[in-house]
Amino acid sequence: MSSADITVKMIFDRWYASINNWNNLLNDLSDEKLQMPIAAGKNRGVYLLGHLIAVHDAMLPLLDMGTLQYPALADTFIKSPDSQQLNIPATTELRNIWNKQCEMLKQNFDKVPSLDWLKKHTAVSDEEFAIEPHRNKLNIILTRTTHLAYHTGQLVLLK
Amino acid sequence: MSSADITVKMIFDRWYASINNWNNLLNDLSDEKLQMPIAAGKNRGVYLLGHLIAVHDAMLPLLDMGTLQYPALADTFIKSPDSQQLNIPATTELRNIWNKQCEMLKQNFDKVPSLDWLKKHTAVSDEEFAIEPHRNKLNIILTRTTHLAYHTGQLVLLK
Repeated sequence: MSSADITVKMIFDRWYASINNWNNLLNDLSDEKLQMPIAAGKNRGVYLLGHLIAVHDAMLPLLDMGTLQYPALADTFIKSPDSQQLNIPATTELRNIWNKQCEMLKQNFDKVPSLDWLKKHTAVSDEEFAIEPHRNKLNIILTRTTHLAYHTGQLVLLK
Repeated sequence: MSSADITVKMIFDRWYASINNWNNLLNDLSDEKLQMPIAAGKNRGVYLLGHLIAVHDAMLPLLDMGTLQYPALADTFIKSPDSQQLNIPATTELRNIWNKQCEMLKQNFDKVPSLDWLKKHTAVSDEEFAIEPHRNKLNIILTRTTHLAYHTGQLVLLK
C-alpha cells in the first residue's frame, strides 16, 4: 500500500463513516421531527438535509465530475437562510435525492485511482497548484467531511 | 513536497482551522452563555468545552507523547453525561486549561517529522498495523478533527 493509498483510505473512511452517522440519524427521525428547529430559532432538520445536498452537489464541478444536478437547491439551501416561510421541496423528495446523490457520488469516487486524488481540483490554477499542492481533490473530500460532521452534531439534537 | 508532506499539511490545516473556529466562538461567548444548554435539555456549552479538553488529553498517550494531564476530567466529561448537578471546574479555569492544552499540543505536534505521522499509534499492535497501515498517528488527528467540528456545530447554537 503506497502512502497515497493509505491517505486516500483514511480520508474516505472518515467520509463514509460521517455519511453513515448522518444516515443513521436521518433514518431515525420522522418527517415531522425534521420540521422542527434544531434549537429555538435555528435551522430546521429538513433545511440541514437540503443544505448538505446542495453543498455535496457543488463537489461535482469542483472534482471535474460534471455539472450541478440540482442547481435550484443552491438558491434555497446555500444562498438563503432558513425560515418557516421558505418554499422548500417535500421532505420525502429530499430524502430520495439525498440517497440517490450518495450512491452517485460513491460510484464516481470509486472510479478515481488514488494518485488522481492528489491532483488539483478545478477551482485552483496550475500556477497556484504548483506552489500549493495540498489544494487537491482529496482536500475537497476532507473539508466536506468536517462540514458534514458539523451539521451532524446539530441534527442529533432532534433525537 | 512529498506525498506524506502534502497529506500531513492537509490534515493539520483542517485541525488548526477547526481549532480556530472553536476558539472564535468560545471567545465570543460569555461565561454566562456557556452555562446555557445548546438546545433544550441538551449539554451545556461549558460541558462541551470540558469534553473537548478530556478527549484531546487522551490523544497524548495514543500519540506516545506522554500521560494524561487531566485524568480527573475524563471522569467528569467523558464517562458522565452532563447534568445541572454535575460538579465541574469553573468556566474560567476550563478556558485556561483549554488554551494551555492547545499550545502544548501544537508544540508536541510541531516536533514530529511528516513520515512519523504515518507510523502506528499506541492502541494498535505491530501485527494489526502490518495489515491496517491507515491506523496511524495522523488518523488520530483526523478523527479528532471531525469530532471537534461536530461539537462546534453545537456550540455555535449559543451565539
